[in-house]
This record gives sequence, C-alpha cells and structure tokens, in this order.
Amino acid sequence: MRPLALTMGDPAGIGPEIIVKAASQGLPPGAFVIGDVQVMRRAAAQCGLQCPIARIDRPADAWAAPPASLAVWEPPSLPQGLAGLPMGRIDARCGAAAARCIEQGARLALAGEVSALVTAPIHKEALSAAGVHHPGHTEMLQAAAGGVPVRMMLANDELRVVLVTIHVALRRAIEMLDVDGVLQTLRIAHRAARAWGQERPRLAVAGLNPHAGEGGLFGDEELRIIGPAIEAARAEGIDARGPYAPDTVFMRARHAPGHPGEFDLVVAMTHDHGLIPVKYLGVEQGVNVTLGLPFVRTSPDHGTAFDIAGSGRADASSLKAALAMATRLWAADAEGA
Amino acid sequence: MRPLALTMGDPAGIGPEIIVKAASQGLPPGAFVIGDVQVMRRAAAQCGLQCPIARIDRPADAWAAPPASLAVWEPPSLPQGLAGLPMGRIDARCGAAAARCIEQGARLALAGEVSALVTAPIHKEALSAAGVHHPGHTEMLQAAAGGVPVRMMLANDELRVVLVTIHVALRRAIEMLDVDGVLQTLRIAHRAARAWGQERPRLAVAGLNPHAGEGGLFGDEELRIIGPAIEAARAEGIDARGPYAPDTVFMRARHAPGHPGEFDLVVAMTHDHGLIPVKYLGVEQGVNVTLGLPFVRTSPDHGTAFDIAGSGRADASSLKAALAMATRLWAADAEGA
Repeated sequence: MRPLALTMGDPAGIGPEIIVKAASQGLPPGAFVIGDVQVMRRAAAQCGLQCPIARIDRPADAWAAPPASLAVWEPPSLPQGLAGLPMGRIDARCGAAAARCIEQGARLALAGEVSALVTAPIHKEALSAAGVHHPGHTEMLQAAAGGVPVRMMLANDELRVVLVTIHVALRRAIEMLDVDGVLQTLRIAHRAARAWGQERPRLAVAGLNPHAGEGGLFGDEELRIIGPAIEAARAEGIDARGPYAPDTVFMRARHAPGHPGEFDLVVAMTHDHGLIPVKYLGVEQGVNVTLGLPFVRTSPDHGTAFDIAGSGRADASSLKAALAMATRLWAADAEGA
Repeated sequence: MRPLALTMGDPAGIGPEIIVKAASQGLPPGAFVIGDVQVMRRAAAQCGLQCPIARIDRPADAWAAPPASLAVWEPPSLPQGLAGLPMGRIDARCGAAAARCIEQGARLALAGEVSALVTAPIHKEALSAAGVHHPGHTEMLQAAAGGVPVRMMLANDELRVVLVTIHVALRRAIEMLDVDGVLQTLRIAHRAARAWGQERPRLAVAGLNPHAGEGGLFGDEELRIIGPAIEAARAEGIDARGPYAPDTVFMRARHAPGHPGEFDLVVAMTHDHGLIPVKYLGVEQGVNVTLGLPFVRTSPDHGTAFDIAGSGRADASSLKAALAMATRLWAADAEGA
C-alpha cells in the first residue's frame, strides 16, 4: 500500500490549519504532508492543538512516523522563513511554496510513489506573483501529467457536476466551447463514473444559454455545439441527455431524501453554472475531484479564506470529505485495475 | 378596492389548469381571469374539478360573479376555437391568444382598473409564431408601460434575486453589460425592497466571471463595469456590496432555519447565475416579480410544461405563491403611496 500525500497549500491561508485539524481526528494510514515543518507547527499552535509534527526525509518514511504525529516532508527548493510571513496576505514566497509542494506531489503521484493527492487551498494571485502562470491546481496537475485532457468535478452528497470550462473569463469560456471539448468532457465523466461502479451512468448536459437557447431564439451554441456533442457521445454508447435548461437541470439531478435525482451527474459548460448549485447548500461537504489524470486527486471545495487564516476557526469538513473521497476513489481504481 | 387580474397564459400549456386548481382553493376577492371561457371550462374538466366558470362583460363585474365561481373576461380579438386545439403543442393561435390577454392586462393595470397582474405561463416559441417578437412577459409589459426600465426578480422563502440581463444569448448578455445597466438594477432593487418595508436593504452583487474575475485574471467586467456601478450606487446611499464570486454569494445570501442570510437580495448579471440557485430546491414556491413597472406583476416560476399539459397533474403551488406575493406587494405599495 502506498502513502497518501496532502499538499499544505498557501502557507498564509487556512490550508495548514485544516490539515492539522483533520490530522488531530485521524488521517488515513500512511498519509503525510508535503509542506513546511515550521508552518505546520505554527498551524497547530493557531488551532490550539497538541499535534506533534514529525519531519520525514522521504515520502516512504510516512509509515514510520510516530503514532498520533503528523508526518511532514519538505520538498526541495522550498522558500526559507515561511512561518515568519504574515497570515492572510498575498505573497510571492507563499505562492512559490505552494507551487513547489504541488509539483512534488504530482511527481510522486505520477511515479506511483503515492496513492492519491489531496491538495489544500492555494491563492491564485500569490501563485501568479510567484511567476506560476497556471490559474489553479487543475491546470498545474494537467501540465505535470503531460497535458492529458482533464476535467474538474465538484461533488457533494446531492450533486456531482463536471465542468467543460473553468478558470477563464466567461466571455472566453464561451469562445472556447466546441464539439470536441464537450464530447471529451462526456467521455471523461462517463469513464470516471463507470470506474466508481456505475454500470451505465446517466449524464445530464446543461445548456449554455437561458432556456438552453429556447430553440435558437437565445443563442445557438446548443444547436451548433452541445447537441452534436451529445449525439456523438450517444453514438459511443454514453447515456448523455440534453441540452437542458441550466436553471432547472441541477434541481432535477439533485439527490435528496424523498427526491431521487433523475441523473447521476451533470455536465455544465461554465464554472459558475456548475458550482453555484453545488455550493448553494454550503461548502462544508463539497469535494473537488480532477478527472482524467493518471492518479487520484481531490481537494476541498473552498479557498484560502485569508479573512480568517491564522485564527484557528477554519472548518476542516470539506478537507475531511476530500480525504474520504480520495481513499474511496483510490480503492475503486485499485480494484478496477 | 380594485380587482386582481390573472392572465390565462398559453391555452395549450398548464396555465388554465393551475388557475382552476388555485381557484378551487379560493382566490383573493375580486380576482378574475383574462382568457377564453371555453379554455377555462376545458381546464376544469381536465382537472376533474367542479369549478363554475362565470363569463363577465367587463373587469369591474368581477365582484358580481357568483360565489365559488371563477370570473372570466374575454378580451377583444381573441382567436376563435381555442378550446379545440390540441394540448402541449406550439400553435400561433395559442401564442396570439396569450399575447392578447397580456396586452389587455397591461392596459387595465396601467389605467388603474386592476390592482395587480398575475400571469400564467406562456410559450415563447408560440408567441414568436404569432408574430410577437418580445421574448417574454417582462419585455411585453415593459413595452406596454412605455419602455420604463424594469428588472426581473425571482423570489422564494430563502432567496431573492434580481437580474441585470434575462432572455438573450449568454454571449449577448455579456456584451450588453454596462455601468448604467447595473446601476439601474441596483436602484430598482433598492427602491423595491424599500417599498416592501426594508429600511436599508443589503444588496449583494454577484460578479460575472469565475471568482468575480480573481483581480482581473479571469475577465475585467468586475473592474470595468460592476465595481464602478456598485461605487456609484453607494454614493447614492444604496447599501450595495461586492462584486462577490458568483459560486458562493447565493449560499451566503440564503435565509434558512439556523442560517440567516448575509444579504436581503442578490443582483446577478445573467439569467442562469440568478435562477439556478432560486430553483435548486424546487420550483414549487418560486415567484417571478417584475420590478420597475408602475403596477404590481407576479407570475409562477415555471413554464407551460407541455409534457403534462391537459393531464390535470400540474402543481398550482407556484401560482398560489405568486397570488399571495401580488396581494402582499400591492398592499405594501398602497400603504406607501
């Protein structure tokens, strides 16, 4: 069995705190942090937790860390003095530190040295200040994996949403839509849902325009792009349906007590069409999953929360859900492999 | 006291059925339908309801209709033979009938002959087939009122959302955004919320782009348009805040037991950013309100449901909520006037 790696995220954000909180309640066996030892010690103090931090020299030593301690591996080229930087501020050194941890996490995952990667939140402006021109984790991991097509999924107990476009201006997202991109998303979503044991996953496809274009009256992307992509996916045996009006498809797909959803997963064209409904009932249980990578990667469904960083008030629920999801997906992958 | 007018909507849709269902449980005093007598009789039969339909010759006669009957006024120029047309089909005659009812409703409301207008669903393609080139009620009523600036609000018990753009392609909605349009929306929303008794309504403004543009990395409409409009509104004494990330602002504004919302109302840039969260928990309680008109207008938050039209299965909850909202708004307006 291989260890699970957690990246610490931006040291000025709540990432280290939620990791320490989750660790104090028990991590999966062999889990370790890729991060800065002093930053993790500071986070334990900020949370008022007795959480011994055990420095390890290489990832495989995670298994040998003392019980009830949190194993931390410091990757090469980490900036110095991180624990002396103020909380809640954009800083190029913090961005660089977050990037180094992710790069090393991706390297270990690609080499098969860790089973899964769970990433704590980063701040995109800090990343940018550090000269990293990927807008987020998803794009960084994709680049590390050689540019394989990946998609972002957000999931909670009620809803699973896979996005065709993510961290770009809405105007640009519309320009980027094409049959191939939508079809690729349907294939990735279908393959992932099958990997988790759904024989014939029902995929709903949300339109782009109000009322899914209302027959062409309010935009033609449904007729030119989304509809043909659905047809092509169906021809490959994928149970894709739509395009449906964006404002009601999520309600229809929602799984709640007394309300069985009509679909297993919704494919949305834009970041916010997909994330508004996943987050509406609260971000505590939401998990972000990158589909299409050659390894399992999950993360909490929230940001660095600079406004409360360092206060010890951050809620670790979403990170715990991300850890549970990573363990589950890895087990399913391992079984299927 | 003036009567309240209900327009029957598209005769091939569920409008007549939900009106008859609501009527069988009691309408506000003096309420009457602008529609076709035979269509309303057919709807009563489709629902298996004993609901006597009383034809009235002019709106003021609504008060004189027999108790427990549903008063129906047939406006001039209604197409003939509507009750013989099939249910659930797009038909230019149905579109024309729906349009005549709305036009007469607007005329009566503008003349002060009715207190409020509650509109049953229309089908936009039927309207278009009838040569009516307004994409929906909101635009038709706005034109009837001489082009006053209006905005669409969707409200349920948890959330109130006012939209800057509505029935246009998403691509076009982005092109249409400007400081004036956003500022106008903030003024209309503020004025409406004050009219309903909120002294200093807290308005949240959702951004357009992912993460509200993340400081310009993912689009500049927040910096160029939305931010300046918020500034201008604040200078006028309006408590407008944002722009906030679209994917979390609705969650923050949500009013639920144990979860007091941070805001009284959210202003959204696009149709689906605003309507996805309002509809996520179900459309039964949602109400559509047109703000900015010189009269009260509400409608249910769903369409013609051609798939179940004529079956008697349509749910009248949203229409009942729209009737209750119209009565409440009219009372508040009358008090404030």
